[in-house]
Amino acid sequence: MKSKILLYTFLLIPGFSLAQNELVKYVKPIIGTEKMGHTFPGATVPFGAVQLSPDTDTIPYEVGGKYNGDVYRYCAGYRYEDKTIVGFSHTHFSGTGHSDLGDFLIMPTQGPLQMNPGTAANPMSGFRSAFSHDNEVAEAGYYKVKLDDDDILAELTATKRVGMHQYTFSKPDEAHIILDLMSGVYNYDGKNVWTYVRVVNDTLVTGYRQTNGWARTRTVYFAMSFSKSFKSYGQKNYDGTQPYKGFWRKFDQTKNFPEVAGKDLRMYFDFNTEANEKIKIKFALSPVSQDNALENMRTEIQGWDFDQVKKAAQSDWEKELIKLKIDAAEDEKINFYTAMYHAFISPTIYTDVNGEYKGLDQGVHKAEGFVNYTTFSLWDTYRALHPFFNIIQPSRNNDMVNSMMAHYNQSALNMLPIWSHYANDNWCMSGYHSVSVIADAIVKGVYKGDAGKALDACVRTANHRNYEGIGEYIDRGYISAEHSGVSVSNTLEYAYDDWCIAQIAKKLGRKDVYDTFIKRSGSWTNNFDSATGFMRPKMANGSFKNDFDALSTHGQGFIEGNTWNYSFFVPHDPAALIKKMGGAKKVGLRLDSLFTMHLPDKFFAETEDITREGIIGGYVHGNEPAHHVAYLYNWIGQPWKTQERVRMILKMQYKPTPDGLGGNDDCGQMSAWYMFSSLGFYPVSPGSDEYALGSPSVKKAVLHLENGKRFAVEAVDQSDKNVYVKQVLLNGKVVAGHSIKHSDIVAGGTLKFFMSNKKRQ
Amino acid sequence: MKSKILLYTFLLIPGFSLAQNELVKYVKPIIGTEKMGHTFPGATVPFGAVQLSPDTDTIPYEVGGKYNGDVYRYCAGYRYEDKTIVGFSHTHFSGTGHSDLGDFLIMPTQGPLQMNPGTAANPMSGFRSAFSHDNEVAEAGYYKVKLDDDDILAELTATKRVGMHQYTFSKPDEAHIILDLMSGVYNYDGKNVWTYVRVVNDTLVTGYRQTNGWARTRTVYFAMSFSKSFKSYGQKNYDGTQPYKGFWRKFDQTKNFPEVAGKDLRMYFDFNTEANEKIKIKFALSPVSQDNALENMRTEIQGWDFDQVKKAAQSDWEKELIKLKIDAAEDEKINFYTAMYHAFISPTIYTDVNGEYKGLDQGVHKAEGFVNYTTFSLWDTYRALHPFFNIIQPSRNNDMVNSMMAHYNQSALNMLPIWSHYANDNWCMSGYHSVSVIADAIVKGVYKGDAGKALDACVRTANHRNYEGIGEYIDRGYISAEHSGVSVSNTLEYAYDDWCIAQIAKKLGRKDVYDTFIKRSGSWTNNFDSATGFMRPKMANGSFKNDFDALSTHGQGFIEGNTWNYSFFVPHDPAALIKKMGGAKKVGLRLDSLFTMHLPDKFFAETEDITREGIIGGYVHGNEPAHHVAYLYNWIGQPWKTQERVRMILKMQYKPTPDGLGGNDDCGQMSAWYMFSSLGFYPVSPGSDEYALGSPSVKKAVLHLENGKRFAVEAVDQSDKNVYVKQVLLNGKVVAGHSIKHSDIVAGGTLKFFMSNKKRQ
Repeated sequence: MKSKILLYTFLLIPGFSLAQNELVKYVKPIIGTEKMGHTFPGATVPFGAVQLSPDTDTIPYEVGGKYNGDVYRYCAGYRYEDKTIVGFSHTHFSGTGHSDLGDFLIMPTQGPLQMNPGTAANPMSGFRSAFSHDNEVAEAGYYKVKLDDDDILAELTATKRVGMHQYTFSKPDEAHIILDLMSGVYNYDGKNVWTYVRVVNDTLVTGYRQTNGWARTRTVYFAMSFSKSFKSYGQKNYDGTQPYKGFWRKFDQTKNFPEVAGKDLRMYFDFNTEANEKIKIKFALSPVSQDNALENMRTEIQGWDFDQVKKAAQSDWEKELIKLKIDAAEDEKINFYTAMYHAFISPTIYTDVNGEYKGLDQGVHKAEGFVNYTTFSLWDTYRALHPFFNIIQPSRNNDMVNSMMAHYNQSALNMLPIWSHYANDNWCMSGYHSVSVIADAIVKGVYKGDAGKALDACVRTANHRNYEGIGEYIDRGYISAEHSGVSVSNTLEYAYDDWCIAQIAKKLGRKDVYDTFIKRSGSWTNNFDSATGFMRPKMANGSFKNDFDALSTHGQGFIEGNTWNYSFFVPHDPAALIKKMGGAKKVGLRLDSLFTMHLPDKFFAETEDITREGIIGGYVHGNEPAHHVAYLYNWIGQPWKTQERVRMILKMQYKPTPDGLGGNDDCGQMSAWYMFSSLGFYPVSPGSDEYALGSPSVKKAVLHLENGKRFAVEAVDQSDKNVYVKQVLLNGKVVAGHSIKHSDIVAGGTLKFFMSNKKRQ
Repeated sequence: MKSKILLYTFLLIPGFSLAQNELVKYVKPIIGTEKMGHTFPGATVPFGAVQLSPDTDTIPYEVGGKYNGDVYRYCAGYRYEDKTIVGFSHTHFSGTGHSDLGDFLIMPTQGPLQMNPGTAANPMSGFRSAFSHDNEVAEAGYYKVKLDDDDILAELTATKRVGMHQYTFSKPDEAHIILDLMSGVYNYDGKNVWTYVRVVNDTLVTGYRQTNGWARTRTVYFAMSFSKSFKSYGQKNYDGTQPYKGFWRKFDQTKNFPEVAGKDLRMYFDFNTEANEKIKIKFALSPVSQDNALENMRTEIQGWDFDQVKKAAQSDWEKELIKLKIDAAEDEKINFYTAMYHAFISPTIYTDVNGEYKGLDQGVHKAEGFVNYTTFSLWDTYRALHPFFNIIQPSRNNDMVNSMMAHYNQSALNMLPIWSHYANDNWCMSGYHSVSVIADAIVKGVYKGDAGKALDACVRTANHRNYEGIGEYIDRGYISAEHSGVSVSNTLEYAYDDWCIAQIAKKLGRKDVYDTFIKRSGSWTNNFDSATGFMRPKMANGSFKNDFDALSTHGQGFIEGNTWNYSFFVPHDPAALIKKMGGAKKVGLRLDSLFTMHLPDKFFAETEDITREGIIGGYVHGNEPAHHVAYLYNWIGQPWKTQERVRMILKMQYKPTPDGLGGNDDCGQMSAWYMFSSLGFYPVSPGSDEYALGSPSVKKAVLHLENGKRFAVEAVDQSDKNVYVKQVLLNGKVVAGHSIKHSDIVAGGTLKFFMSNKKRQ
């Protein structure tokens, strides 16, 4: 009955309706595919296990035995700048700054069979094809492009675990579907560990691909079904290191041989096509087995109606998007719903329809009572994405914490995930930010599991002495510069994470844990240099490291952020930081400098992941460590500066164009920042129940919560010039300070901002 | 009740008792470990999945990119000639002429840690150790050796799926257990596909090893438990091709790091030991998962009583051996029971205790109502081993046929196994001899499954046109010399196999199938050259190939046998062959020549798998194609020559010494030949219900059949000189011809041979 009532409520809201795809139309997956965004334009459903998307190149990780720096640009497989498409593969990270995946590349061709991809300069030399953006459509859950070389129309859509392809061959000719099992994002010699393929019959193929790489031991199983019987098929094995070939010569294994395995394989399937004939493919994935992949396929897509699957995918998106309905300028709607789309791509579902998944112990587990997720880029996403989920996707976030606990329970290290990656941890970036996500979910009442066990997991993770200097951090209160190149960022992030653990302990009345971790959360003070006012790497003997360069990152004790940005990283205690820094006035000047300074060219040459697009003054929005910094003006009595800076960042860093993202979207963190800030509030310190108020950019927004309540944001006199907030009313009552609480939101109600072009002191 | 009665019957048989290990003591696993036997001396139980045995070397398959011919000698990992032991690994083929396995090599050492094996010339340079046969004991289910380098006593025993190690460290010192995950029999670059290890706690380690090679896609899972906590552990990764190391530097992964994976790994575990302290290890295998390996371990061995496990292993052997009790000279008993031991090593069990196994489709299956087996070296074992099982192990042979049918059902090729190899087919050797095993089991009433489905599987396998010339064979009646280097042996073996299929069809009343295949079974005539009287390769145009050399194998259209041996390969119709060859007299001369000819030296240089030890005249007993030939004298009215030849082969080819086997034991085929011939009869043409009579070498034998009946063989006036048979009585009635029927055996009774030193015409 509840859902019916909810539906009814929706229908009664003036200006809201359930009209099909009212919001999906604002999603432009092409945003972020140019320059730094590292997003992909292909088809996926919310949190789907399949991300079926074109790859414009699959650049090798190494060239001549050396790291190929160019590979960084191809994290998502597709770059808007490119003129050719190599094929369509089934897994992609969204917005990461390091990469993997790109499994099972499929490409349709006609005419003589070409088994090599060819070059971008001469696509006719291989199976890749030229294409034009004029003939390209990228929507939520749907992608279409004309492949110019053979005049083939390619269309893609997806369900949670199945990608669906539809290829229209304009000419009558021999057609081929290439299944490239060697291709992958970030390939290098030794990345493809093994591939196995089984041609079950003339429309069904199953198998798996096993890779090493960013995830050390990763296997993806598949089942592929064709809408039409192939007339023949074959393989080419590019691996030279296989003896015992003698026994295998008993068959001609290159053609029509149904048991195929090796390290570096490509396969092809031949068809005769009439003019405008369509060949469709259902391609299901599983982390567990070929059988499960088949079951996923049969459960999620019956029949061959591509348009129906596309419609369902877009309807799935609409159902998610409609949870947050905004009134804003059209471009802002595009930015906002595309941000929401990007925020709902990952973490990704990592259970089969029967509930099975591969665990961190490489064993098969069954998720009892929850959906297991992977792709946790936690250093990024703990900041705003998971807090955003706590408002708009609390059930999923509860399952994400359940997934983290499963990861912990299966970990021989007894650690919560650092970066959960398809039954692996790639341990990327600093901190142990699972504890932040868990604390935020517990403090906000979202986590329904055993909070005591979760606290134990957090404590055990935080006490893992031989991980990234934790032992020294515990003993000394900081990590010495001799022992780590990222000593300061680690210490600062551990201190914040420890504060999160203390918050759980506080809620559970575990005083011993609270005392230990609240003390540890003060460790940031050990890296603070009063002489310079900056966080600074410290030697084991207690002296600060010499040769300190506040603009550099490398060799300065930080990662993805210099001390200008990182010195503000005490999200759990800005007041104490401000005091340390010499008070509000000094901090105000410092913040102003950060946002307005002129950076020397060498900064860009030296600093990873940074381009001029991602920077405002010296404030790096393209990387995450300073994402909360614009909100710190609230703590020094200059909220109008928070308001103008936030509006400036919203304008400068997010545009409705392919190059619209100023930095890697980082699995939705950049997008979550956008949505929070557009709505006028932001979680400066996840693990607390407070949101700092900023300046909304929407005119109006209604959040439809899972509990059936609705929370509305209204910005009276909203305009591009009226970026300052005169007054804020919560349910008609004046908000005195510069924050609201999570409980204010989940109780439902209205947050009304009165906007102005004048600063309010 | 039945089993109780059976037990009671045993006790009443005069001269038989159930005294512990009465027969086990005759088993000498060391037989065949020198020169050509390719057997292993270590511990295994009947048909066990674990073969825990010392490796004296693990020779690389390639040296400098070239095939290392020396590797052939190391099929079983151990060579009696060697002076050092590298370690003890858990899987070994018994008697094969090609190889694989050698998984999970373990070695105990003391003193400074050595992670490399060192060299045979200087064992102190690594973890390997010198040893002496004086300090070595090899029994059924038990192996013991003193490792001289560090004065460590190593003992091994096993259950079906678990190997148990017991190491006694004489000195108090730091001890190490090396777990070498790179080592394997027949290693080459690229053979180790992947290894994963998880240190669960300070006594338990699990993981898997995945290899390419003779089996293309093979994974073995393990669980290893120590009797004592290790104080520390570590790994060394010898694979140079892993980027992303940056993220992994977050830990010191070389020491005490519990999630280990890579292509080429060795691990070590450190202990402090007191003088004479024992460290024990339980090492369980599974084809399915780490969890299953652990379940296998916990089910099969509780606690740490090594002696009890050893006792149980030897009792398991005793229970099998006692099924066939012989009275013979002591050396013959050693030969006989060692043959029986070797015959009961493979096929090997390939189900976990919970019934799960990995199928040919690389999926997990559950064996419902049967035990799944692998290691079917069918080209060898269809001849005598499976017929032997049909008498003495019918339930197991029924399950072996069930296993073949499961293989068929999981095969994308829709083929019965050629050489079933751990969820793979390595397609080694000629023919499709599964059909012989199936026909023999059906004709003899052993197979309890659906015979109709089995026939369909046989027919489909035999009609697989693109396998090894089958298409041409069907169309032309032979395989042309242009298209195959083994055209004649293939045609001859297909013809015999087709006759087997016809026998099933006959029994099931499937006339269409019978007609087709009985016709195909005559195809041997197409390769018979009346001019020379030999089987000879034929060109596509119907003419025989020129440059014919009857002594050579290579380039002559044969494999593992020249035309002198292969020309007799019409086991299903000796009468027709004799007629073709010009009648009894001519054939008699030809047979005599075969057994007495003098071979030129070049024969040995050219012919694979052959040494002078495995040959009598030109008769090659060390390879299988002529195993039935000595019995053919029965068909030309010279049974006394069968009798004397058989006795001669028994004497010359089987000795109770390490070098006692004249050729590879070939998974028990050589041993099964020995047992049949010792008992006085042999299955010349499996698929028929007849056994040709020879000359028993035992004085007496009693076969205790599964149906509760007993079948006795008695040789009156038996002696080394009395090799001729005067008369044979079956249950007191004179046997007229030179054969008995399977039904004669299973009905129970007594076969009495009256021996003499005079030939009976």
